Amino acid sequence: MATIKPVKPEKRERRRLRTPNPEVRKRFLSAGLELINEVGFSAVRIEQIAERASLSVGTFYLYFEGKADLFIEIVIDYTDQLRKRLSDAAADGGSAAERLSRGMDAYFDFVEENERGFLHFRDAGNVETTVGRLSTWALDRHARDLQPLLEESIEEGIIRRDDPELLAQSIIGLMQHVAGFWLEHKETHSRDQVREFVAGFVANALRP
Amino acid sequence: MATIKPVKPEKRERRRLRTPNPEVRKRFLSAGLELINEVGFSAVRIEQIAERASLSVGTFYLYFEGKADLFIEIVIDYTDQLRKRLSDAAADGGSAAERLSRGMDAYFDFVEENERGFLHFRDAGNVETTVGRLSTWALDRHARDLQPLLEESIEEGIIRRDDPELLAQSIIGLMQHVAGFWLEHKETHSRDQVREFVAGFVANALRP
Repeated sequence: MATIKPVKPEKRERRRLRTPNPEVRKRFLSAGLELINEVGFSAVRIEQIAERASLSVGTFYLYFEGKADLFIEIVIDYTDQLRKRLSDAAADGGSAAERLSRGMDAYFDFVEENERGFLHFRDAGNVETTVGRLSTWALDRHARDLQPLLEESIEEGIIRRDDPELLAQSIIGLMQHVAGFWLEHKETHSRDQVREFVAGFVANALRP
Repeated sequence: MATIKPVKPEKRERRRLRTPNPEVRKRFLSAGLELINEVGFSAVRIEQIAERASLSVGTFYLYFEGKADLFIEIVIDYTDQLRKRLSDAAADGGSAAERLSRGMDAYFDFVEENERGFLHFRDAGNVETTVGRLSTWALDRHARDLQPLLEESIEEGIIRRDDPELLAQSIIGLMQHVAGFWLEHKETHSRDQVREFVAGFVANALRP
């Protein structure tokens, strides 16, 4: 985790902690995400994050170089949490289409819970980090998680035989785009409408 | 055109031209795009753009507020050019799937010709302008162009009856994501492979 940083680090140099406390780090991450979802990334101040976490601004800078650095670590942390939720939702029981559909539901839940964080990630996730472009990194992880389910299903003949890497990328890219569209068109498109649409579109695309 | 600006304009205030010369503006736009595709957006200097356009830096600032402003106008201008190419390619002749497939070819041509410009647009297109988020604006235009073809085809019963707006958004979002993936995976995925994949995926998704 701690090795993934923006390529151009922010001005403020961070004193290194010999024994960082993972609990403290987590409190900053969750306070940061809460506030981003409440008021939006650009409005959040470090002081507020520290206050929400019941910690000091000085402690914040022992753990993060700044707000952009915090956001990168939030994305990394919550990508792993989302992966866990997606894989739990898609765990066995039912056809590949049903498992995928449950995964989509879990994804829409996550997007809805983290609306402003999701939109900021979509808009600012192009930041270069030591693992490459942050949003490419995150979407690739989801695509790679999805690929084995697609490969199995191709072997079983229940989905169309095609390049599983491209299939996984297509589904992930499509879902991210449509989720962003939905958040910006809530007045015309309900969650159920969008979710059913995507599930139908993907199930159709995958038919053998 | 000239009314679409970043919401936070750059420092340098532009002197207003009473009678801007559209030829001069065009020369800056095409010199800018050429250089972005040659060396990448961040490496391009205004001096180079002026030199390539055989115009002066002073003249540049009569037409644009800076490099970010130029890029927005390039996107606006080339979105219209791309729309024309897509609609020409998809013009009548053949089934909806064939027309869509020719449109995809034209899209891949454009992406290939403007590889670095395309990637910069994908990564920096989240900029707020007076027409909203630039990339939302551009993708919406393509989606809206595509929608009538989908509506007709639904009426004719040759594609699945579903929300045409979501269908159009899905196809556009999918194509943009997969094109970006392709540019970053040229060593493992050829253009033909990716293009055939997308055409197959979409044709399948649209089957009645």
